[in-house]
Amino acid sequence: MSIHIPRGTQDILPGTSELWQYVEAKAQDICRRYNYKEIRTPIFEHTELFQRGVGDTTDIVQKETYTFTDRGDRSLTLRPEGTASVTRAFVENKLYGNPGQPTKLYYIGPMFRYERPQSGRMRQFVQFGIEALGSNDPAIDAEVMALAMEFYRELGLSGLKLVINSLGDTESRIAHREALINHFKPRINEFCSDCQQRLEKNPLRILDCKKDRDHELMATAPSILDYLNEESVAYFEKVKQHLDAMGISYVVDQTLVRGLDYYNHTAFEIMIEGEGFGAITTLCGGGRYNGLVEEIGGPETPGIGFALSIERLLMALKAANIEIPIEQTIGCYLVALGEEAKDKSASLLFELRKAGLSAEKDYLDKKVKAQFKAADRLEAKYTAVLGDDELAANKINVKEMSTGEQVEVSLDDFITYMQDRLKEE
Amino acid sequence: MSIHIPRGTQDILPGTSELWQYVEAKAQDICRRYNYKEIRTPIFEHTELFQRGVGDTTDIVQKETYTFTDRGDRSLTLRPEGTASVTRAFVENKLYGNPGQPTKLYYIGPMFRYERPQSGRMRQFVQFGIEALGSNDPAIDAEVMALAMEFYRELGLSGLKLVINSLGDTESRIAHREALINHFKPRINEFCSDCQQRLEKNPLRILDCKKDRDHELMATAPSILDYLNEESVAYFEKVKQHLDAMGISYVVDQTLVRGLDYYNHTAFEIMIEGEGFGAITTLCGGGRYNGLVEEIGGPETPGIGFALSIERLLMALKAANIEIPIEQTIGCYLVALGEEAKDKSASLLFELRKAGLSAEKDYLDKKVKAQFKAADRLEAKYTAVLGDDELAANKINVKEMSTGEQVEVSLDDFITYMQDRLKEE
Repeated sequence: MSIHIPRGTQDILPGTSELWQYVEAKAQDICRRYNYKEIRTPIFEHTELFQRGVGDTTDIVQKETYTFTDRGDRSLTLRPEGTASVTRAFVENKLYGNPGQPTKLYYIGPMFRYERPQSGRMRQFVQFGIEALGSNDPAIDAEVMALAMEFYRELGLSGLKLVINSLGDTESRIAHREALINHFKPRINEFCSDCQQRLEKNPLRILDCKKDRDHELMATAPSILDYLNEESVAYFEKVKQHLDAMGISYVVDQTLVRGLDYYNHTAFEIMIEGEGFGAITTLCGGGRYNGLVEEIGGPETPGIGFALSIERLLMALKAANIEIPIEQTIGCYLVALGEEAKDKSASLLFELRKAGLSAEKDYLDKKVKAQFKAADRLEAKYTAVLGDDELAANKINVKEMSTGEQVEVSLDDFITYMQDRLKEE
Repeated sequence: MSIHIPRGTQDILPGTSELWQYVEAKAQDICRRYNYKEIRTPIFEHTELFQRGVGDTTDIVQKETYTFTDRGDRSLTLRPEGTASVTRAFVENKLYGNPGQPTKLYYIGPMFRYERPQSGRMRQFVQFGIEALGSNDPAIDAEVMALAMEFYRELGLSGLKLVINSLGDTESRIAHREALINHFKPRINEFCSDCQQRLEKNPLRILDCKKDRDHELMATAPSILDYLNEESVAYFEKVKQHLDAMGISYVVDQTLVRGLDYYNHTAFEIMIEGEGFGAITTLCGGGRYNGLVEEIGGPETPGIGFALSIERLLMALKAANIEIPIEQTIGCYLVALGEEAKDKSASLLFELRKAGLSAEKDYLDKKVKAQFKAADRLEAKYTAVLGDDELAANKINVKEMSTGEQVEVSLDDFITYMQDRLKEE
């Protein structure tokens, strides 16, 4: 009986893993240019971190975490997102004390949510995210959005839509919260049980409800934009002004509220328009979370970031028919005939690789014809044929596959000869 | 109250994450040359996989797994090692049916074992491993060992010791097993309770016991090398012959048995000699596992691989004072004076990065002197100063930090000018 992969997870196999490597290298490169540095946090954290850092009224924490008790009786949770962990690391390692603030970090790694698996929604999925901690400058809000938009653009995606909103500061949010409660309370019994609970705990999240999205009170709900105080309005204006100066277009959507707690001021999502992409349209989400560092036990520190799913990005690239350039060739394939030549080819192979070249040989005792076929399949640039005759003469026969040109080379010179021919590799 | 990182795990912060990136890029590069392709399997698997694929009499599976029940009542286990998962993926995705056998795979990723944390032994740790599935050629045993040894050598490590042994084929192992039982049985009550259980289940593992290692029967235990049949002896000889031809030195240690089930024929470890390295001396372990694919439900397929810990590798590099080259500079730091110039600098920064350059500015409303200090700290190659005066004249003042040379450049030409100056970046 065979054992299957857990539901909602996937194997990334050769042929596909190269796409991941390519996209991750692109993420690393844009982070280098924007001066974001990599941080890696553990796969699991104490459960309390996510209750506090994501919010224990959120669907993620209430229904979707992988939570378990370890052999030391601690409650641990596989991270469902990256921001809480990065913030915990920022506080625990006192990164706020380093010179060179704000602290600009990025991460790429697996996250875990127990959801119904569907296209673009896996139980284990990989997020690329950035966090800028320690600055309240609207220019950094724009920078964070710019990095995400440029990342997609440089990969070749078009038809992207940047949707932004402001959730305002605490004062604005309290005023808006009151207005929302007054708006929904008279008819809250027409809403789902989750929304009924949300009414007093976090009425903003009612706007995010998938079940009640078509209720008539949704469309007429008070907009946060009408409750922003002067400072919050000025902040939002400045963010938009920076985006304008960068030439990044956006639309303001006052219903954009984001699913996580502790968001304030800027909230944004990047959607993809275009056919053939199924139900998934949001590629990236982010926003400002000025209260989070304090909530995790650190000093008052503003923060902003985004997270995007690599799986959805790859789906979008595929839907847009964007070809990812992948180098899959081999420099030299060694073809050997006879026992002694085979033995010799193993150590020649070792020397080629030691010299920095990619090289391969047969490991299945194949006939010569089948060895050439293997060389073709690997798109070898050169084949080098070694028989017992050549071995006796201390020579090897090198063939350039693109031209068919063949040269006999002394075995003593073979490695440097191949290095010379393949130095462009 | 602040929340701490789970015991036995670590944050990898900027300044250290670059070392990881460097080492991982080196692993990717050597795998490219040796024609191993990346595979990524899920962080968790069905618990049964490790019971079967690692062995339910092993310490790993009995005492050290993170095992839990998900919301769908499945027993899942965070992977304690990579081979079982790769083998599961090989079977489930029918990779044995692909042309181009053997299937040569590598992985880099976190593994999880609930052990007492100590130097070089974390509960979450990262393994780089390779697996070659589908070939019984002794040359591939040598290739696998060569790749590991070359990986360390290319990183600059010396004083490495390759220790090898043969566990023989099934016939040889059965004969040896009988001899071991006869050897230990009369005095098994002098051994720990684990060893008493091992006697009938897997007596080979008694040789691996940390508690009983000094018992006098250990030194006199029958050696597997005395029980190898003719075929197993010939196989082992050929493996050694290949290593000799590659110029890779090794020692044969008949007590090397490896902690996992399903190993046969070649077993090896790479140890580091050298002072200042504490108790940890094994850097890498591997071996042949010809029965594993069948055990997981696939067709009879030979396999061999290794796994090594990146944490221990980094410890070894540090102990050997090996400097890892890390590029940490920034191409251009924008210094801005005045409100308008600051706004302008944000969009110039965006343009520099769009042009492929690494660039940074201030986000904390710092005075000019502090901005220059930040540029120094980032080792900026150039600073570009923009005041309201320069802005009015449509100019910017560019300074090369290594020479002190200053040039006034038109704002219209600034991006191409910087591209030109930094094209080597």
